[in-house]
Amino acid sequence: MTPQELHQDAIVIDGLIIANWSRAIFEDMRKGGLTAANCTCSVWENARGTLDNIARWKQFFRDNADLITPVHTTADILRAKQEGRTGIILGWQNLSGIEDQIPFLKVFKDLGVGVMQMAYNTQNLVGTGCYESKDGGLSDFGREVVAEMNAVGILCDLSHVGSKTSEDVILESKKPVAYTHCLPSGLKEHPRNKSDAELRFIAERGGFIGVTMFTPFLAKGIESTVDDYVEAMDYIINIAGEDSVGVGTDFTQGYDQPFFEWLTHDKGYLRRLTRFGKIKNPTGFETIGEFPSLTAAMLRAGWSETKVRKVIGGNWMRVLKDVWGA
Amino acid sequence: MTPQELHQDAIVIDGLIIANWSRAIFEDMRKGGLTAANCTCSVWENARGTLDNIARWKQFFRDNADLITPVHTTADILRAKQEGRTGIILGWQNLSGIEDQIPFLKVFKDLGVGVMQMAYNTQNLVGTGCYESKDGGLSDFGREVVAEMNAVGILCDLSHVGSKTSEDVILESKKPVAYTHCLPSGLKEHPRNKSDAELRFIAERGGFIGVTMFTPFLAKGIESTVDDYVEAMDYIINIAGEDSVGVGTDFTQGYDQPFFEWLTHDKGYLRRLTRFGKIKNPTGFETIGEFPSLTAAMLRAGWSETKVRKVIGGNWMRVLKDVWGA
Repeated sequence: MTPQELHQDAIVIDGLIIANWSRAIFEDMRKGGLTAANCTCSVWENARGTLDNIARWKQFFRDNADLITPVHTTADILRAKQEGRTGIILGWQNLSGIEDQIPFLKVFKDLGVGVMQMAYNTQNLVGTGCYESKDGGLSDFGREVVAEMNAVGILCDLSHVGSKTSEDVILESKKPVAYTHCLPSGLKEHPRNKSDAELRFIAERGGFIGVTMFTPFLAKGIESTVDDYVEAMDYIINIAGEDSVGVGTDFTQGYDQPFFEWLTHDKGYLRRLTRFGKIKNPTGFETIGEFPSLTAAMLRAGWSETKVRKVIGGNWMRVLKDVWGA
Repeated sequence: MTPQELHQDAIVIDGLIIANWSRAIFEDMRKGGLTAANCTCSVWENARGTLDNIARWKQFFRDNADLITPVHTTADILRAKQEGRTGIILGWQNLSGIEDQIPFLKVFKDLGVGVMQMAYNTQNLVGTGCYESKDGGLSDFGREVVAEMNAVGILCDLSHVGSKTSEDVILESKKPVAYTHCLPSGLKEHPRNKSDAELRFIAERGGFIGVTMFTPFLAKGIESTVDDYVEAMDYIINIAGEDSVGVGTDFTQGYDQPFFEWLTHDKGYLRRLTRFGKIKNPTGFETIGEFPSLTAAMLRAGWSETKVRKVIGGNWMRVLKDVWGA
């Protein structure tokens, strides 16, 4: 099997894309042979703002039915693969979307939201993000939120969550939880990166790690290549094992500077939390359409076909089925 | 001067009433000779729910202009005294009303909200309440909130706030802050009561303490009398001095059990935070209309006329002017 044939045959899942959604992006997803992706539809928005975003997605599904299809279960992902469409898992990077209403978790789950991050960069009602000065851990309300996310089948994402809150969620959740898109601080110190101890802690408790390629968090920054990305994956696989690791690119395709300004200020408009500098994806994997070059780089690194199939999507299938129940 | 004459002559300010607002309550305020009161108009509500409550107040002001008048400055309180009306300071017991919008602080200030509690019983975006398992302190967003409350002139209330968050707010605020309605844990251990160290800490930093008479927090419970209330005031005055203490009854007049259920569950509907048991105010001071009996009890305890005038309202005037700037 050539690298291209393996990529076309495999289930390819991206654990995090936050693109400027449009038909052009959906076309690039097809070009990249993407079977399914966790697509962010809420970051700082409240319930109403998130509903507006989901209403846009309903229209996207109608207008682009030849390219994309909604995902509620892993069976939907298999169906998407068969139909040659990209399955869209709606995801949140924050819990501002439920405001103070735990019953909204089931409401949004039924609208297709299968992944929710517990906090985005700063403190919310549930816990604390990774750019907050102090992390007081999971709140009592947060414990009720985790229990309900477990009950209705929503994956708890911890990528932008503070260290103490992450630990609390890992211990609290009865279902696997994930860093859907992170990098190791063993390769570069950064508030968003996870230490070896943190990676080991989540993996030992049945959790999952999606590896991002966001270059500000990689040692070589914008000089990084797709091979550096695979090296970072291997760093994490050495700690967590090849069954607990997947892809979570964090593609921001199509967005411009005002969007990054919104992302990097608390609530979208308050104090600055971080500066990314120039945004440039790793050479060889700069667009979603170039996804096959990731599979090629994995093989170039000496990975077996089995390992490639697991990390490029098979592992995500297992953990999503564990959490969603189907 | 008889006790009644002193009461009628003094500025009488209640730092916290959360009654079931109606013309009957406003009539009782006049009967009690109340010059002004901090009247709760938001507890668990979001911005929209709080606007609904304030819209009701606009109608109350229109329909009951013979009894009440809105307060934005201490000059308004003096005017209310002259006119024989009760000045209404709108107040919040939580910061859920601003949601994630710091600019809403100025909006609500201009609508007459002069006092806001930093958190009610549990964790919010700003800090942590007194019934939360852990208190991680003031969030970074919370620091921005304190700065803006200082800038626009809103008193930071810490009555239901956790110990660590309270300490952070006391240190962070450039203006005096207050426990508007609390009791000492030196007389009864309770999550809502404040230790001698906490009372000393706020007083030494220019802060203020309004003393509540809510009987579940008093040693004798529903057997308490108005004299026990004055004794609790003296306990706090011994720590904080007679210039930093005032009244904050926490009258819940007119409310029934469903309201207390709403208050004592997180966000109004989640896990139970506390149980009050039977609600009964101290004998001799069971209704707002009996406010003159508080002045009488102060005199009966041997208080000088000067001390009575300060604690019954004069001290509140000073701290409110400090915070509001007028």
